[in-house]
Amino acid sequence: MTTAGTTTTAGTTTTGTAARTEEAASLSPALARQRYREGHVEPTSGRAAGFTQANLVVLPKDWAFDMLLFAQRNPQPVPLLDVTDPGATSTALAPDADLRTDLPRYRVWEGGELVDEPADVTALWRDDLVAFLIGCSFSFERALIDAGVPVRNIEQGRNVSMYSTNVQCRSAGRLSGPLVVSMRPIPASQVVTAVQVTARMPQVHGAPVHVGSPESLGVPDLRSPDFGEPVEMHEGDVPVFWACGVTPQAALMASRPPFAITHAPGHMFITDVPDAAYRQP
Amino acid sequence: MTTAGTTTTAGTTTTGTAARTEEAASLSPALARQRYREGHVEPTSGRAAGFTQANLVVLPKDWAFDMLLFAQRNPQPVPLLDVTDPGATSTALAPDADLRTDLPRYRVWEGGELVDEPADVTALWRDDLVAFLIGCSFSFERALIDAGVPVRNIEQGRNVSMYSTNVQCRSAGRLSGPLVVSMRPIPASQVVTAVQVTARMPQVHGAPVHVGSPESLGVPDLRSPDFGEPVEMHEGDVPVFWACGVTPQAALMASRPPFAITHAPGHMFITDVPDAAYRQP
Repeated sequence: MTTAGTTTTAGTTTTGTAARTEEAASLSPALARQRYREGHVEPTSGRAAGFTQANLVVLPKDWAFDMLLFAQRNPQPVPLLDVTDPGATSTALAPDADLRTDLPRYRVWEGGELVDEPADVTALWRDDLVAFLIGCSFSFERALIDAGVPVRNIEQGRNVSMYSTNVQCRSAGRLSGPLVVSMRPIPASQVVTAVQVTARMPQVHGAPVHVGSPESLGVPDLRSPDFGEPVEMHEGDVPVFWACGVTPQAALMASRPPFAITHAPGHMFITDVPDAAYRQP
Repeated sequence: MTTAGTTTTAGTTTTGTAARTEEAASLSPALARQRYREGHVEPTSGRAAGFTQANLVVLPKDWAFDMLLFAQRNPQPVPLLDVTDPGATSTALAPDADLRTDLPRYRVWEGGELVDEPADVTALWRDDLVAFLIGCSFSFERALIDAGVPVRNIEQGRNVSMYSTNVQCRSAGRLSGPLVVSMRPIPASQVVTAVQVTARMPQVHGAPVHVGSPESLGVPDLRSPDFGEPVEMHEGDVPVFWACGVTPQAALMASRPPFAITHAPGHMFITDVPDAAYRQP
């Protein structure tokens, strides 16, 4: 619904924040990607509502087996939605998209160090690069809201709180590291619903890995997350922990591959796949 | 329950077929594998009842990425339960087992040709071999029977009927090939139950891929399966088709890797994992 101001398909002449937000939410995945391809930069949260967004990790073929094995062994933090052929620039999740241009912002890594945050990686693409598209918790946050479960980080307009834990992932070749979890405060009376709703979505991290007792996960203080922002707990909320898509990036950066590209945090790849496709009946 | 005859832990002195069958069904996975390690050869159907059995495919590291990618892209025919590190001889599915000795019979392939069917592959094992453990329909056949759905191939004491189809798998590197399906005749009134029961077990092939109409799968005559044996349909039965674990072997043999080891048909790897672990609530 467009209420105030005028819009073009690229959304560049919209006036009024509310109209722009509504218009961005209702953009098709193809139009949202076109905007990013044309240089528009923004976090993708809430964009092309109803369609699955994915984390991106791109690695040289030499490292791809380790990453694929790491994912196979740690499916909750690393749920693979697609893996490309070496050198390919498109994915089955959105056949018309170009992975080199269609995310709003990327991160480029050399030897585990962040070296650039460009909006286009065409010039960096190589014939030996393999892209991993990984499920994202945006999909299950929508499902929680649909089920009447409040999502505090969204209510508070903040990034979710994420923590490194004392749980080690199963290692794979050169890749190893701790499980990273996201935490959402859930009203005690709705913890069961939150478990049931997310358990039906294993391709976007699935059921929680831990409920309550942050100290037994090795998290000493919920107010000091390792990634993201602190989120306020309400009276009667219980901290519920899900496996987090930061896990593979943490493992990757610790093991320092010579070259990698990822999405910039919050700047995801918007696929053509409806969220409902990843909800089990 | 041991009724007649005397048994040792290796089961070698049991007398009486019924006693032997009951005793084999009630063997622990560890004792069943010990028998095979000591040289006993038999199909594993019905052995160590209640524990998951797995297909085995072993490939040089050079081919392992293609196989892992083929599995990621074709999860219904190739549901991976575990993938080992190069050169490793054990799996997380049964930490005390030795993959080189603990299956009753193996097949050895060179350039896509079957060259041997030994009961032990210790002498052939190499530091660059990667083992793939793949879910098996034995697990969901048990779940169907538990739900009151007849499994005709078991009733008739025959191997299940399997067919190559006109559906192509998503290819991965050097691996490509048709989807191979198994067919079970299901009473029309129980097709829905069969779908629901197996849909809850995605790691052992999951829901059917096709119900009725064999001709639209490219199967001209159900009485002439490409693998396994013909199974009699009863009046009112509908042919129901599941993705089949023969699919990766067919792709592998078509693409002729220089060296591969698999289990011999029906002679599976018995894991320590209860069947229930792969049933979703």
